Amino acid sequence: MFQSFEVTARPEQGPPRLIALRAQLTAEKLDGFIIPRADAHQGEYVAARDARLAWLTGFTGSAGFCVTLNDIAGVFIDGRYRTQVKAQVADVYTPVPWPEVTMAQWLREQLPQGGRVGFDPWLHTVDQIAQAEKTLTGSGVELVQCANLVDAIWSDQPAPPMEPAKIHPLEFAGETHAAKRARLAQTLIEEGEQAAVITLPDSICWLLNIRGADIERNPVVHAFAVLHSDGTVDLFSEPSKYDGLKAHLGDEVRLHAPSTFLDALKSLTGPVRIDGTTVPQIVADTLGDKATKGAEPCALPKACKNTAEIEGAAEAHLRDGAAMVEMLCWLDAQAIGSVTETQVVTQLETLRRRDNGLQDISFETIAGTGPNGAIMHYRVTEETDSTLEDGHLIVLDSGGQYLDGTTDITRTVAMGTPPQEACEAFTRVLAGMIAMSRLRWPTGLAGAHIEAIGRMPLWLAGQDFDHGLGHGVGAYLSVHEGPQRLSRVSTVPLQAGMILSNEPGYYREGAFGIRIENLLVVQNAPSLEGGDAHREMLDWRTLAFAPIDRRLIMTDLLEPAAREWLNDYHAQVASKIGPRVSATAKEWLNAATAPI
Amino acid sequence: MFQSFEVTARPEQGPPRLIALRAQLTAEKLDGFIIPRADAHQGEYVAARDARLAWLTGFTGSAGFCVTLNDIAGVFIDGRYRTQVKAQVADVYTPVPWPEVTMAQWLREQLPQGGRVGFDPWLHTVDQIAQAEKTLTGSGVELVQCANLVDAIWSDQPAPPMEPAKIHPLEFAGETHAAKRARLAQTLIEEGEQAAVITLPDSICWLLNIRGADIERNPVVHAFAVLHSDGTVDLFSEPSKYDGLKAHLGDEVRLHAPSTFLDALKSLTGPVRIDGTTVPQIVADTLGDKATKGAEPCALPKACKNTAEIEGAAEAHLRDGAAMVEMLCWLDAQAIGSVTETQVVTQLETLRRRDNGLQDISFETIAGTGPNGAIMHYRVTEETDSTLEDGHLIVLDSGGQYLDGTTDITRTVAMGTPPQEACEAFTRVLAGMIAMSRLRWPTGLAGAHIEAIGRMPLWLAGQDFDHGLGHGVGAYLSVHEGPQRLSRVSTVPLQAGMILSNEPGYYREGAFGIRIENLLVVQNAPSLEGGDAHREMLDWRTLAFAPIDRRLIMTDLLEPAAREWLNDYHAQVASKIGPRVSATAKEWLNAATAPI
Repeated sequence: MFQSFEVTARPEQGPPRLIALRAQLTAEKLDGFIIPRADAHQGEYVAARDARLAWLTGFTGSAGFCVTLNDIAGVFIDGRYRTQVKAQVADVYTPVPWPEVTMAQWLREQLPQGGRVGFDPWLHTVDQIAQAEKTLTGSGVELVQCANLVDAIWSDQPAPPMEPAKIHPLEFAGETHAAKRARLAQTLIEEGEQAAVITLPDSICWLLNIRGADIERNPVVHAFAVLHSDGTVDLFSEPSKYDGLKAHLGDEVRLHAPSTFLDALKSLTGPVRIDGTTVPQIVADTLGDKATKGAEPCALPKACKNTAEIEGAAEAHLRDGAAMVEMLCWLDAQAIGSVTETQVVTQLETLRRRDNGLQDISFETIAGTGPNGAIMHYRVTEETDSTLEDGHLIVLDSGGQYLDGTTDITRTVAMGTPPQEACEAFTRVLAGMIAMSRLRWPTGLAGAHIEAIGRMPLWLAGQDFDHGLGHGVGAYLSVHEGPQRLSRVSTVPLQAGMILSNEPGYYREGAFGIRIENLLVVQNAPSLEGGDAHREMLDWRTLAFAPIDRRLIMTDLLEPAAREWLNDYHAQVASKIGPRVSATAKEWLNAATAPI
Repeated sequence: MFQSFEVTARPEQGPPRLIALRAQLTAEKLDGFIIPRADAHQGEYVAARDARLAWLTGFTGSAGFCVTLNDIAGVFIDGRYRTQVKAQVADVYTPVPWPEVTMAQWLREQLPQGGRVGFDPWLHTVDQIAQAEKTLTGSGVELVQCANLVDAIWSDQPAPPMEPAKIHPLEFAGETHAAKRARLAQTLIEEGEQAAVITLPDSICWLLNIRGADIERNPVVHAFAVLHSDGTVDLFSEPSKYDGLKAHLGDEVRLHAPSTFLDALKSLTGPVRIDGTTVPQIVADTLGDKATKGAEPCALPKACKNTAEIEGAAEAHLRDGAAMVEMLCWLDAQAIGSVTETQVVTQLETLRRRDNGLQDISFETIAGTGPNGAIMHYRVTEETDSTLEDGHLIVLDSGGQYLDGTTDITRTVAMGTPPQEACEAFTRVLAGMIAMSRLRWPTGLAGAHIEAIGRMPLWLAGQDFDHGLGHGVGAYLSVHEGPQRLSRVSTVPLQAGMILSNEPGYYREGAFGIRIENLLVVQNAPSLEGGDAHREMLDWRTLAFAPIDRRLIMTDLLEPAAREWLNDYHAQVASKIGPRVSATAKEWLNAATAPI
């Protein structure tokens, strides 16, 4: 269960697989086939059998897709993976900067005479297909539903996961599934809808207060569900996973084999809500004109955590913070040049596992030293494993899945004497992270409206970073969850109870990376003397507590208010985490949290 | 031509006019009628004959509308006018907070059984009607086109304006109208469109390098136009206004009587572009299925000023700044309690008119002292005229229309000893204004993404203001022009050449108001040492130069970088404006711009 450093996909496997796939194209009379990273549930992680993109191309990033044509195979990757993709795919694959170049633009260019491009209707959402078809209008390129051509050539494709589901106790969930089903059913009634289709496993797990282990790092069970306006649920998931859960589910949750899902959709009458951003195209096709577009029914309710979930997350972060402090103390005690990235990852996971509440790490730990730190979503392997050298920065981005909450924290630590430009950039990243942490803002604003606050110090120096400032986080669920984001593309208003990361960074390719991340929870801001009496405002409560490396801070570049925030934060780290760590770590912690 | 302080509409005129209008409703078998502020050209200012909303209700704000039903008449006003409306309308009118309450919501509530609500199809845009009809679906409320019922009861309605048009010289326009027409025609060809309908007078004036005087404060001529994909233009505007402009317009601009406009639309073939946000409903109805929606063809090209326009604006601002400095010097020399708001307005206009380049003021000067300063768009009248007293702040928001540019500047000045809380708020407003002025940001971002930077200091104190941070400004055209805005609702990416205001404020009802405003122009930011080499960024060039009242600044609340910006700005004010003012004003200026 520990993180593996195996090289899961090798560039040299790509070319023969591509040849086999192209033979399928010929057999099916297609001019192309689309291989997304996603499975039918659109999660960030996929089961081994669904890792088709990595199996084919070698690219293991968490987002992207490949479009294979007869004479070119484009691998579409976003800004986070520009460096990584070069190392992972053979030259028969052509990296395409996405979304700057859209699939439709690329297909128009590569297939000027038009052509038939196949796709698996389970793996693409309704909106993805609609958008692609719209932008392909007039191009002569036709999207064609077909069986999955990768599955056809993947002779040793793993079986679907069959891990047991378990009850998520009310103590942590804070609300019974009957109450959740009833209030969501009310929203269907208000919209005049008879039912809603739910295909996101974390939504289903949240709704029914269950968890699972079908996908690594995410405590979810593979399932589809139909929520009816009477509050009952039809659950389509391997029944053998639910031994012992019958009483928990009760009579109002009816369990069915997954193979009956499409037939059950056919039998529905009246308007059925589907969320075009998450539901597979095949669901819309099956429902036909009974489908009506609407919001994923669980997404917003799940995002707004209740008191039990917030206090659970706070407690999980204190235990997680203790592991982080032990880790940072251990790291400082190692001789420069004596430790490698994989040793760092293993040590951190060992420390997290000492807390027997840990169920899993919440994602593959990122431990990138020196130039590896500039690879935003770096996953160390035996091949890339590097030694922490003098002058290196190491980016350590990790988290745990605990029964009471999901954590995600990043610290960047100096080895020996870091370069001046790294310290300057670190201080700017920190200034942005602090500015966002200190923010207070009027209700109604979304991530798009406030994200700039966390970037401004970098902007003023002509710098920036190519990922969002923050993502939503689940309650013992996905470490990346919507709909809330601190991103220029997110227009979902922030609401009390939403947990988000605040993680500005800076990356200089070939040199170093920096990222500092705390999880925060949105709360109603207290009224201030002299403030506008009528104005409702929100602010943050910080959940994560671990020292920020003072050796990388250029104090003069930090404004007085930011210095004050940092000293206050460090005092809290010392008082909250100090009692939970060893004597050695406590002594180290006191020094690491001294005022600047 | 000087600003008038006449009370243009009185609350007591409202009730009898409302009775007359309701008689029209009965005669037309309608349950309601909508009276917008807008005319057929959707400009912010309207000619006297088009001031139907003010004539009927008494409300003179620049945005809003009235919906008159048989038993209630709602006046829909946004956050800027909440205070003003109370003083201007009789109690037969009910102020409705808009857009928090939409017209559709209100109509559903007021007409639970449904009903027929009339509107004049010249005065509402295509998108307004579509949006209203969509949100009224299922309510039983029907929107019905009809003749204007206000015109029917307005016996002494003024005649349409008939002011002559004049040539806008190439020296200031920077591009011939033939070149503009050719490059816009190219965008029609690219979209496969045969023509585009233009109904915004400032767009037409920009396109044809003409100006007019049909509307006060806006140097435009009332006109409609059709731009054809061959670059020619059919111009529908009173031909007698164009004496002497035949050579300037040339053969490719064909002048027609306005009454022929709809018939000309009927004769068009092929796709005709209309912008749903600006074109009247009657245009869409006349075009029928030949209409295709698209961007207003002039809006973005007009917003991105060329070098001649930018340098013209800069020069206009220096002359305007000299008038402002003389004004502020004069104000400081007056005994406390000896001057009223109208005297301030007249003095400022007198000083601006000393520069014989002034064509008009660019909007009604706002001079609000004490509690009047809290009325965001206050226009002083004989009735409200107040004396500047000890402890007052006066908000002075004004601008000029010059041949080389349009100005708009706000300064807030202390009378005697201002209250501490006003100084604190002033310093926060200034901190936000400076933060925005100093900003540098990556290309591709819009006002929605950066506006928070100018509000953050207020937010941190639990304060905010209920207007956007900034608006676009024309080149000797409208002082409020789109599509660019510094506002949470604006997703139009900022581009080099766009002129915007940066005007944070703070308003405490019944006590004081604060606003500080400079115009800025977006420019390509120079690369910085240590900055990301590949990253294209934008920043601001400040156009406006006038001192900011140092007596209202609590220096300790201002960060060092902000103090440095202010001192540098003030040094520029002294060096740029000093040579342009009287000896007395220069001496005052040197003191007013001393470092803090």
